[in-house]
Amino acid sequence: METIQSFTQLTDHLKAHSGRKLVALVCGYDEHSFAAVKRAVREGLADFILVGDQSRYGQYVENEQLSRHITIVHELDSDKAARIAIELVRKSEADILMKGIINTDNLLRAILDKETGLLPHGRVLTHLSVMHIPTYHKLLFFSDAAVVPYPTQEQRVEMIRYAVEVCHRFGIEKPRVSLIHCTEKVNPKFPVTTDYVNIVKMCADGEFGNAIVDGPLDVRVSCDKESMEVKGIHSPIDGDADVLLFSDIEAANSFYKAVTLFAHAEIAGMLMGPICPVVLPSRSDSARTKFYSLAMALLNVGLKKDSNKD
Amino acid sequence: METIQSFTQLTDHLKAHSGRKLVALVCGYDEHSFAAVKRAVREGLADFILVGDQSRYGQYVENEQLSRHITIVHELDSDKAARIAIELVRKSEADILMKGIINTDNLLRAILDKETGLLPHGRVLTHLSVMHIPTYHKLLFFSDAAVVPYPTQEQRVEMIRYAVEVCHRFGIEKPRVSLIHCTEKVNPKFPVTTDYVNIVKMCADGEFGNAIVDGPLDVRVSCDKESMEVKGIHSPIDGDADVLLFSDIEAANSFYKAVTLFAHAEIAGMLMGPICPVVLPSRSDSARTKFYSLAMALLNVGLKKDSNKD
Repeated sequence: METIQSFTQLTDHLKAHSGRKLVALVCGYDEHSFAAVKRAVREGLADFILVGDQSRYGQYVENEQLSRHITIVHELDSDKAARIAIELVRKSEADILMKGIINTDNLLRAILDKETGLLPHGRVLTHLSVMHIPTYHKLLFFSDAAVVPYPTQEQRVEMIRYAVEVCHRFGIEKPRVSLIHCTEKVNPKFPVTTDYVNIVKMCADGEFGNAIVDGPLDVRVSCDKESMEVKGIHSPIDGDADVLLFSDIEAANSFYKAVTLFAHAEIAGMLMGPICPVVLPSRSDSARTKFYSLAMALLNVGLKKDSNKD
Repeated sequence: METIQSFTQLTDHLKAHSGRKLVALVCGYDEHSFAAVKRAVREGLADFILVGDQSRYGQYVENEQLSRHITIVHELDSDKAARIAIELVRKSEADILMKGIINTDNLLRAILDKETGLLPHGRVLTHLSVMHIPTYHKLLFFSDAAVVPYPTQEQRVEMIRYAVEVCHRFGIEKPRVSLIHCTEKVNPKFPVTTDYVNIVKMCADGEFGNAIVDGPLDVRVSCDKESMEVKGIHSPIDGDADVLLFSDIEAANSFYKAVTLFAHAEIAGMLMGPICPVVLPSRSDSARTKFYSLAMALLNVGLKKDSNKD
């Protein structure tokens, strides 16, 4: 397949290659969820099961274009609505779980429930984002700005596996994963750098399949060949990273907020680990971000559900 | 004074208000140091004492415009050159210390020497940067992307004091200092957020003088009023931060590298703590960054040398 290098190409790809999927949306009462749903329906990408307070789904019902593509499951209590939506996925009656304006922590709790949730035992739950930055030549994935605060080495390894899988879905044959640190030096004072050395070894041993993994590298060297050369760094990332793995949530979040605000990047994101793609936007995310996140999830329906190696 | 809101205004201000200062430059053999020196001389801002290998300062000597404004102190050994430059500052024979292509760690070691260095006993050494981001309406200061990896609470407090002092020098009467974290929630799981609460209290008690300090806030809410309103956050920072204090070097460095690369920000920086301004650019920094850093240092000559409260 052609590599998907922008959100427009992502949408085009889905329109051409993906059948209509079924999305369970929890408490999608807000304007931006509504706009994302409307667009997904208009583009022919999805039908929706709207779980929550029926009386607050009025605008969906009144919209003629939408009405044939939605089903409403009435439930006043948002925690119960979350459990109903999750049950739909567990019974394979929905392909994707999407969050509306229910509190993130509450939805996560329901996803993590050992008996009735969506996360297979022992699987790492993490968040993967992808940005279109006007000043970068392709999409840039990164993790984790939202869910895992301080990844362990085991979690880092899984985060890379997930990112590589998703990149393959985007048609990136051999994704370049850069392990981010403030400098390129390996230094025991920064334990993350010695962790990175071990990850690079794992990659050399084929642990991540068809992928290039290198680090420690800083953000600039990872994404700019000239900076790499000026600094005299040699790396197979070659200033052309597809994925940035950040050391922790503070670094990832600062990156994300700065690049969306100051470089006008568009962003999408999804949860990795559950048995189906989960779209978990913030309340404050734009309609575009909600739609692109849904599109990212649509592309990733059917990622192997038990891929963690034991 | 008028507030300085760009590097051009900074240069204009120095030309109008600052006498010619004396800069001790260690191993300034590289093209970018040379360009920065040339510009500083041309703008009438500084004379230079070039410490290092005389034979490598040929381009300075051959430049007619420069030759009247430079003095060379010959020393082949770069560590000794650093010590000579530092001694010039200690004897008040130079106002500013500037790094050329000597290794940063080596220069820092000389600065930190308890007997012959530049850091008064008990004073915190940290790095303060300032950026001009084309998509932000004024200069944005931040700390610490270079020297203190994981600040203690005591270091954070000093970093804020330094930043406030420097902002006053830039004519920012009441600087807004935002304490950066990935969310706005105070949560004991993230000890930095409870540290921030104490810093905010100190600010209310007048500890930082004429300044506004608030947090935890994320980068976006700190610098964008609309994001603040959408998220329903109330903060005296008001989406109009002058200073971002990051939780650690990974967050600060990711921010710095991302914004310079993807939002084409211009950047300057200096060391805070020593008895004189110290300009410590990376080898790979542009001539412009080296000049702006020097300009930042020139504005800050004579910051009170013993301001740490005991």
